[in-house]
Amino acid sequence: MTNPHNKGKILLSLSDWAPDVWQKRFSEVAADRIVVTPDDNVAPEDIRYALVWKQKPGSLQNLPNLEVVFSLGAGVDHVFHDPYIPDVPLVRIISEDLTMRMTEYVVWQVLDHHRLGSRYRLQNQEKFWLEDRNQPAAHEVHVGILGLGVLGRDAADKLRYLGFKVSGWSRTEHKIDGVECYYGQDGLSDFLKEPDIFVSLLPLTPETRGLLAMPLFKQMKKHGPLGAPVLINAGRGLSQSEEDILSALDQGILSAVTLDVFATEPLPSDNPLWSHPKVTITPHAAASSSPSALVPLIITQMEAYERDGTLKNIVDRAHQY
Amino acid sequence: MTNPHNKGKILLSLSDWAPDVWQKRFSEVAADRIVVTPDDNVAPEDIRYALVWKQKPGSLQNLPNLEVVFSLGAGVDHVFHDPYIPDVPLVRIISEDLTMRMTEYVVWQVLDHHRLGSRYRLQNQEKFWLEDRNQPAAHEVHVGILGLGVLGRDAADKLRYLGFKVSGWSRTEHKIDGVECYYGQDGLSDFLKEPDIFVSLLPLTPETRGLLAMPLFKQMKKHGPLGAPVLINAGRGLSQSEEDILSALDQGILSAVTLDVFATEPLPSDNPLWSHPKVTITPHAAASSSPSALVPLIITQMEAYERDGTLKNIVDRAHQY
Repeated sequence: MTNPHNKGKILLSLSDWAPDVWQKRFSEVAADRIVVTPDDNVAPEDIRYALVWKQKPGSLQNLPNLEVVFSLGAGVDHVFHDPYIPDVPLVRIISEDLTMRMTEYVVWQVLDHHRLGSRYRLQNQEKFWLEDRNQPAAHEVHVGILGLGVLGRDAADKLRYLGFKVSGWSRTEHKIDGVECYYGQDGLSDFLKEPDIFVSLLPLTPETRGLLAMPLFKQMKKHGPLGAPVLINAGRGLSQSEEDILSALDQGILSAVTLDVFATEPLPSDNPLWSHPKVTITPHAAASSSPSALVPLIITQMEAYERDGTLKNIVDRAHQY
Repeated sequence: MTNPHNKGKILLSLSDWAPDVWQKRFSEVAADRIVVTPDDNVAPEDIRYALVWKQKPGSLQNLPNLEVVFSLGAGVDHVFHDPYIPDVPLVRIISEDLTMRMTEYVVWQVLDHHRLGSRYRLQNQEKFWLEDRNQPAAHEVHVGILGLGVLGRDAADKLRYLGFKVSGWSRTEHKIDGVECYYGQDGLSDFLKEPDIFVSLLPLTPETRGLLAMPLFKQMKKHGPLGAPVLINAGRGLSQSEEDILSALDQGILSAVTLDVFATEPLPSDNPLWSHPKVTITPHAAASSSPSALVPLIITQMEAYERDGTLKNIVDRAHQY
């Protein structure tokens, strides 16, 4: 940009999501920034920033003045399906709003399994009153979190505050007060032995692809206060083998699962996960990017970048995270 | 008791609950204390303490050496259905275990309504994928708690930690950091105006009997981020008019309810609450008294009493709480 007063245009390249709510939010909080879509007839050299969610492959090519790509989700795997990503910084969103929404979801689903939600819903349906006096207390139940980034740490904190025992595993070493932390391939087996409820918040990377599968399930404990272990995946669908999950449920290796993410989304209507009685499905709704919360954060990032070149949360392309 | 080394016997007078788990727990932690039931052939003058849950009316009469009655639940209304309660201190259980269990339940159900649990379960059943991008954040949702004793305060604390806006109402004045507190008949109308989700943890007293009824529902807001307000009652069933709840649901004055307590328990199978699509029923399971947690607390209370006459949490009989 030769003219410092020319802020450049912002290209919004989305699949599945409607662009208008994002454009509207920009017009409310930064009317001087022009937000266009690939369908608009805009000169490629006018584009300075791109905001992407599963961008159409190639849509970021041939933009000679593109300086930064912003991913509109916490994960960035949706960006890498495109082989034509220009060599400019890729910035990932870390927002308190997204983090809190993910923690709400994790706490909700952990409690739903811990407090026997599906059993009571069945009793409700059958008009069957059974007072069960064997409900374990939270401190008797151990939650293991896979992925100890911003999301995993916040979920761990809130679960501990409710009384649960919490441990965690991540690719690299982390230390969290009151949470036993394991890391790397070496730490995985030890981590798997204790939890009653597993929560995956793992990003999709070459290392996590297909990780949630039978070899991992078989290292879990056989029986705890809630029966066999429970799995909650609110990370990415391609981290899980859906075939192995169904087989682990049928063999009693897992007692129940909650899945917010799937190998193919929307989940096809003939997928057997839909009708399995031990599977709870939510439609990738754990932590939705809210334009009202995210747009101001992106504008703050753009302003800092324009002031002194600062960019936070740049993605490490080698790890695709 | 003329002999200080004579600890006296403990009478366990229960309805609905089995006495054996309580006796077993006493034998584990205080084998020198003898726990009997009304069916045992024990001399009435040997009974020094009574532990009660819905005791059979009259079962505490004619015990000349009875010194203290301990209620085994957080509420004590179940004691007062008996017109023959001797004039000795009645002690109510306040245990961290019970409090934490109640908070788990409240947080679980608040999140289940906030995060659209019943809508997703229906979509799950119908194999219908709909990504809804209008999920409000916790800070946009206001939870109002009726009853600000130990249970209400703990629930308020945990809900605030998850990001919800929280206010509360109680019979007498309370102050809680970050929670707008209303009290008394005068404060009720103002309290009712704002919350999107109401949680009742009220004890059953002459003042709360039938309080959760149409005149109260009609003072609530008409519409918020979750639609019409939601009601969760984990206090006592006789605080609610079940007829008015059904009618408020059908008129759209309430959008959904979760009930853990009922006028008649177990809830009769012909009660229309069972099959109403907007009603979630749990079988008085919100916070069950666990013998393993409660018996040590009762023994500590007995020891303090025997040492210097100290008794905590004595019930105010005028308010029946």
